[in-house]
Amino acid sequence: MRRLRIGMAQINTTVGDFLGNKKKILRAIDEARALGIDLLTFPELAICGYPPEDLLFKPQFVAENLKTLNAVVSDSSGITIIVGCVNAREDIYNAAAVIHDGRLVDIYHKIYLPNYGVFDENRYFQTGKGVPVYRLADIGIGVNICEDIWYEAGPATAQAYSGAEVIINISASPYHAGKGDARRKMLSTRATDNVAIIAYNNLVGGQDELVFDGNSMILDEKGELIAQGKQFEEDLIVADLDVEAVFRARLHDPRWRKESLLLDAERCQVARITISDKAPEYDKPSLPPRQLQTMKWPAEVYSALVLGTQDYVRKNGFQKVVIGLSGGIDSSLVAAIAVDALGASNVVGVAMPSPYSSPGSIADAKALTQNIGIKLLTIPIGEILQSYLETLKDNFQGTAPDITEENIQARIRGNILMALSNKFGWLVLTTGNKSETATGYTTLYGDMAGGFAVIKDVPKTLVYELAKYRNSLGARTSIPTSVIDKPPSAELRPDQKDTDTLPPYEQLDPVLTAYVEEDKNIEQIVNMGFSLDMVKKVARLVDTSEYKRRQAPPGIKITPRAFGRDRRLPITSRFKS
Amino acid sequence: MRRLRIGMAQINTTVGDFLGNKKKILRAIDEARALGIDLLTFPELAICGYPPEDLLFKPQFVAENLKTLNAVVSDSSGITIIVGCVNAREDIYNAAAVIHDGRLVDIYHKIYLPNYGVFDENRYFQTGKGVPVYRLADIGIGVNICEDIWYEAGPATAQAYSGAEVIINISASPYHAGKGDARRKMLSTRATDNVAIIAYNNLVGGQDELVFDGNSMILDEKGELIAQGKQFEEDLIVADLDVEAVFRARLHDPRWRKESLLLDAERCQVARITISDKAPEYDKPSLPPRQLQTMKWPAEVYSALVLGTQDYVRKNGFQKVVIGLSGGIDSSLVAAIAVDALGASNVVGVAMPSPYSSPGSIADAKALTQNIGIKLLTIPIGEILQSYLETLKDNFQGTAPDITEENIQARIRGNILMALSNKFGWLVLTTGNKSETATGYTTLYGDMAGGFAVIKDVPKTLVYELAKYRNSLGARTSIPTSVIDKPPSAELRPDQKDTDTLPPYEQLDPVLTAYVEEDKNIEQIVNMGFSLDMVKKVARLVDTSEYKRRQAPPGIKITPRAFGRDRRLPITSRFKS
Repeated sequence: MRRLRIGMAQINTTVGDFLGNKKKILRAIDEARALGIDLLTFPELAICGYPPEDLLFKPQFVAENLKTLNAVVSDSSGITIIVGCVNAREDIYNAAAVIHDGRLVDIYHKIYLPNYGVFDENRYFQTGKGVPVYRLADIGIGVNICEDIWYEAGPATAQAYSGAEVIINISASPYHAGKGDARRKMLSTRATDNVAIIAYNNLVGGQDELVFDGNSMILDEKGELIAQGKQFEEDLIVADLDVEAVFRARLHDPRWRKESLLLDAERCQVARITISDKAPEYDKPSLPPRQLQTMKWPAEVYSALVLGTQDYVRKNGFQKVVIGLSGGIDSSLVAAIAVDALGASNVVGVAMPSPYSSPGSIADAKALTQNIGIKLLTIPIGEILQSYLETLKDNFQGTAPDITEENIQARIRGNILMALSNKFGWLVLTTGNKSETATGYTTLYGDMAGGFAVIKDVPKTLVYELAKYRNSLGARTSIPTSVIDKPPSAELRPDQKDTDTLPPYEQLDPVLTAYVEEDKNIEQIVNMGFSLDMVKKVARLVDTSEYKRRQAPPGIKITPRAFGRDRRLPITSRFKS
Repeated sequence: MRRLRIGMAQINTTVGDFLGNKKKILRAIDEARALGIDLLTFPELAICGYPPEDLLFKPQFVAENLKTLNAVVSDSSGITIIVGCVNAREDIYNAAAVIHDGRLVDIYHKIYLPNYGVFDENRYFQTGKGVPVYRLADIGIGVNICEDIWYEAGPATAQAYSGAEVIINISASPYHAGKGDARRKMLSTRATDNVAIIAYNNLVGGQDELVFDGNSMILDEKGELIAQGKQFEEDLIVADLDVEAVFRARLHDPRWRKESLLLDAERCQVARITISDKAPEYDKPSLPPRQLQTMKWPAEVYSALVLGTQDYVRKNGFQKVVIGLSGGIDSSLVAAIAVDALGASNVVGVAMPSPYSSPGSIADAKALTQNIGIKLLTIPIGEILQSYLETLKDNFQGTAPDITEENIQARIRGNILMALSNKFGWLVLTTGNKSETATGYTTLYGDMAGGFAVIKDVPKTLVYELAKYRNSLGARTSIPTSVIDKPPSAELRPDQKDTDTLPPYEQLDPVLTAYVEEDKNIEQIVNMGFSLDMVKKVARLVDTSEYKRRQAPPGIKITPRAFGRDRRLPITSRFKS
């Protein structure tokens, strides 16, 4: 009976926190020993955190990472470990260290370096060349990293066709809504194509604009999910792998001898490396059954926003956050997310009514803070606004009120929130959604002022869904129904409505998705059933707002293409779609 | 006598301005015909502008680029043209179209794609494979693109060893101080190593954070500069190339048959393609002699700032700019640059005195505006400041005045400048220098508020040099001597000096260069002769200000590593150098 007890440590690392990351790794090793785990894995770049970006150019960063790796090696007696780290030879590599019983057995170098979307790995890493297959007694093991497994004729296949029965992929795969399904489908295909068990160890946690959702998976050689890590939480996933079943299945699988795949395997430089001659012992108590489940939309997105907010605030050393509350749905949702991320006592709401604020909005902000149990400061801006208008009177003589006066209000609010931040050390959370960010329906240095933009990548129509989802969680309503029901307004002039400036969000959002996320052109979007005028206007708004987005705070990516480094457009451009 | 009259059109293209770029290209073709030019070249991606970034993901952008290319082909009767464009086969390529007499002869694909510093070309382009050598009658010509020529055993060498006597490199090489010398040295080496004439056609103009400085060069087979384009200006460089001299030199050059280079050439897939069988006629009037000269520092940096500002403002459709004038040297220099870029009538200065502004500063701002001939608005902020302090009184009860009150002032000024921008359509230029940007000695949404940060990459010590340089240009002093002589101060509290918070700039700047641009660690910088405490403090200031820089407006790169996409650091990081 060839069996292997695997443990996948789905930990939440922090970039550059070598001490903290080491602690988490050593704690998982201790836990794994107690559970009789033979082989323990960690996520991609677990030693230094992911993605380290240009910190990789600092030689001392790489050196500390290697020092930390050595400490982990020293502490690995009696267990086999796969851990992500940076390796330095003549150049640097995104690597997986294979450690056994106090000894560094080998270091695998990532072969497929992603350089699209949010990724810049060609900027940093050399491409790995070797495709090792490890032997743990009579079990063949292949190790590769993240992107490597997404290619049909990649390292996993070469390893399988060279004797690997268990393929371990250590990963740092950023979340977007729906990505879990795509990953599972791909992993299932890879497992069945290679008739191999696949253990996919993903990272969990927030890092600037990215949330890694964990959701690690083990699939058997039939492509069936046999174990799964929690989503958006740390976890240690333990499973007993029936390696004998892989052998039997390969004997009976006609596809296993496909010529083309064999050729691919032959093209690779396969090294055969023995980790240990000693077989894992199997007088182990069996594992308790584990429930498999994946969160469903919009719960999943909501959890991503909570984790992303929590980690940005905490990893950057903040305790409390402050949020401007307009009584609208965006700020109400952000406040609820902040409460779930940080606790009500760490969230301060600020109402800053102006002469154009409706009494309903002020009441809604109050009701919200009572419902979610946060402190509310009320700081009216009327007098400050008057002093600006008075001061600018001479210069503005002969001009009609326009967007200038609206922006002054928004910027007074930004200044007040920043003053509270400066005085009390609270981080300002901004409340703009993706529909606004896309169209520039925001004030730079006004409502855009703050450290973290929680719902920056959430289209307005999804904001409504998330608010309703949040309300469905507790026994009583958190976000007042009137907030959800009233027509959206910036309330910067009398009787203002968002629809004065923008198409209704039910029309705007699909146009934005097509234009921003799918690179569709005007004609293609019109063919989806929208008017030419509207589509043209929206495209122009998106194009001409690039300068605002360039100065926007970071926020959590939850769609396949977020603004930020996921979408890099010039400000200076005369191109009209 | 084998001779070739070459013309290099050093034009200022705009990203996505297909119509405008085509016009410039066709105008240059007309001019070239009149001058009897046989072979006319254009910069890298001249058709679509450089760098187009994620616009390349829009199929319509690529399609319009090909349409424009076809128009250029149609208009090429009687001349040979090399022009940069995007080519689309199964994927897209950074390409050079070779056009002759109304016919597209071939398209070369760039082989070395830069993916470091400000460059992301692996994100977009496939790597070229072929290394063609073209025949224009009996003259061998190699064409390659920008990065291709920086590699010793790259396409240029393969082409030379396969019969190319003239190597054309079309380029879009961004400026930083001193880069011209590096380019000339490299091109000279490449010319002598390959015993070939090298014609290097660089782009000119500003695009967001980059300035392309032109400075195109032709070097003969001995590595001597025989023609050179203007720096920071459009130009058409014309030269008669003595190709016969290359042949003679090769006969006599023992290095020419070096084995290793021959091998390199053989490894490449060299295609031999005939452009035309007809030799260029040589009853042409000879060219007037051309003065060779390169600007010297700091004139060069000053010109880069002028061009970068001019192009950002004009290409984004602005007419006028507005600048907050503190009476300090940073804002004075920016105002002078703006005047040189846009003309005095397009620059508005705004003095916004507070209770902490010294009378000297107000007088200095006035004197500056009189000297450079721009309008000055004076908008005191005392009353607005009072209304903020009054409004926040209750919330701030029991706290001592601190940086909060200083930031409120800076943000009031930001709000006023943005209000003028909104009301009158003026672009706000910010005035922060690189030393401040590095250390976070700036107020987010305050003095950082604006569309373009002219001297963002200029260290403070260089700001002084540039101010003195500017003053040396005219008959009389532009930037008042008192501005240059007084100790720098933000004037946000009584008797404030920069040195209250920062080390003197003569010490700070070399530390910043070592830490930011050279990735030196604390120990290495201390060994340069600075105190451990000071270096540690500066490094911490740089590390913890990343969040501010992330929201900074774009500004002109003039050093080897600017903040922005040249240096991509996480905000969330626990790494301490």
